[in-house]
Amino acid sequence: MKTYGDYEARVRESFARQKMMGQLKVVLLEVRAGEVVFEMPFQDAFTQQHGFMHAGAMTTALDTAAGFAAYSVMPADAGVLTIELKVSLMRPARAPRFRIVGRVLKPGRSVTFTEAVAYGLDNDAEVEVARLTASMMVVSGRDEVTG
Amino acid sequence: MKTYGDYEARVRESFARQKMMGQLKVVLLEVRAGEVVFEMPFQDAFTQQHGFMHAGAMTTALDTAAGFAAYSVMPADAGVLTIELKVSLMRPARAPRFRIVGRVLKPGRSVTFTEAVAYGLDNDAEVEVARLTASMMVVSGRDEVTG
Amino acid sequence: MKTYGDYEARVRESFARQKMMGQLKVVLLEVRAGEVVFEMPFQDAFTQQHGFMHAGAMTTALDTAAGFAAYSVMPADAGVLTIELKVSLMRPARAPRFRIVGRVLKPGRSVTFTEAVAYGLDNDAEVEVARLTASMMVVSGRDEVTG
Amino acid sequence: MKTYGDYEARVRESFARQKMMGQLKVVLLEVRAGEVVFEMPFQDAFTQQHGFMHAGAMTTALDTAAGFAAYSVMPADAGVLTIELKVSLMRPARAPRFRIVGRVLKPGRSVTFTEAVAYGLDNDAEVEVARLTASMMVVSGRDEVTG
Repeated sequence: MKTYGDYEARVRESFARQKMMGQLKVVLLEVRAGEVVFEMPFQDAFTQQHGFMHAGAMTTALDTAAGFAAYSVMPADAGVLTIELKVSLMRPARAPRFRIVGRVLKPGRSVTFTEAVAYGLDNDAEVEVARLTASMMVVSGRDEVTG
Repeated sequence: MKTYGDYEARVRESFARQKMMGQLKVVLLEVRAGEVVFEMPFQDAFTQQHGFMHAGAMTTALDTAAGFAAYSVMPADAGVLTIELKVSLMRPARAPRFRIVGRVLKPGRSVTFTEAVAYGLDNDAEVEVARLTASMMVVSGRDEVTG
Repeated sequence: MKTYGDYEARVRESFARQKMMGQLKVVLLEVRAGEVVFEMPFQDAFTQQHGFMHAGAMTTALDTAAGFAAYSVMPADAGVLTIELKVSLMRPARAPRFRIVGRVLKPGRSVTFTEAVAYGLDNDAEVEVARLTASMMVVSGRDEVTG
Repeated sequence: MKTYGDYEARVRESFARQKMMGQLKVVLLEVRAGEVVFEMPFQDAFTQQHGFMHAGAMTTALDTAAGFAAYSVMPADAGVLTIELKVSLMRPARAPRFRIVGRVLKPGRSVTFTEAVAYGLDNDAEVEVARLTASMMVVSGRDEVTG
């Protein structure tokens, strides 16, 4: 996939400005052209009423992974905004840690299609707990939307 | 819409157990049969890289409002789990406060269809910033999923 | 909602070019700024294995209604393409006729947010059978995509 | 993935009853446990206003492939109904033929999660044009919903 300059530095700098990633203690592990990998711990503060991680917390990590995957293949002066996202919640999110992989399905001049998958990690087992597809807007020339 | 016993008490009790609602400082304002209303403040800790409230934070509030709208019309011993959700992000979420309204589109024995809308509140203006549709599972007979 | 010139004529002309609308015998009843109304008969040729109208047939009518609602508020030289759509299938589609209403939730320069609802019509009763939300791209300057 | 008896025969019999598949000239090529493969020709009768295959026609094939993938791993007396579907339309659908692959992401007792991908086939090239995720309901004990 075509990239522009030091995309990894841009992704890491923008990720660092996402304050909600800090709340969720999400760590950015890997950045490739059109793909990023996060890890997120289970956190009691972000559970729902049954004690599982909240669908909204999982969505936050999935959306961000997909957004940065899209951002990694955008021109250097563009910003990324989520147009819409859909998440399928396949299993309760109760593993001690989660691995989240976001990737670009098709880059575009104005819209980039993405998906992301969250895996629960428990000892040696890895099981898919949630899956997102999202459309990302490539935003150019709006000063408030860079990164 | 048909309800079962003191549904408002059940919704309020289950809401109180959602720890992520506390993090986001979401307040449960109103509970009716098939409809709930929340208010959520803008919080810098839950922003994305451009300083808007994160799509994931908005999704969390929308999903929870839709889920409790569904829960309000479920039998007393049932629990609710989100099967899937879709969120359209119509405008940047930068208002000082948000009103979130969740409602049931169609209750069902095993699946309940819902929608939720988030409005940005700024002085006297109210503008729609995001909209969700979600399918909620009616879970019976699983001890870990009550409420 | 802001419109451009004789939008109704443009919608009707483009609708007439949609060959699949002819197959499904969809009739365009009303065109307003940001809203269109269709009627579609039940047709045995477009059923699924249980004898209900196919989810795909319902989606076709919903997507087209939403697309033309978006098109009705686009500049005269723009075309419309669906980026993505989600459909919730709330009840089996077995009424003798369906009314489909598409409307714009928020027009945009590059993306327009829409929804559409399909109602089953049976004697005097009208019941919601399916609901769509979709993001529509405003396409300019591509000769193959006008209308 | 666990199957029940001669699932391929059940899938082929139910597919044959889908009249809309006949209209679209969809051919069922392969049936495996949790996966089906279709082929569909480009047909002028099912185009939209720009001469591409209609998003609704693509959705019909995708939804059906996903539904039969789910059906292939259901108990012998169950029926399948789509709860909801989302389709991302990545490229205009203008290839002479399409290959559609539906597969189960996670089977369930009451809800099965699926995805499906449509590829345009043009000479030796194969390119992804659309992708669906859908939740399928496992319907038991309703005489009108078998297959």
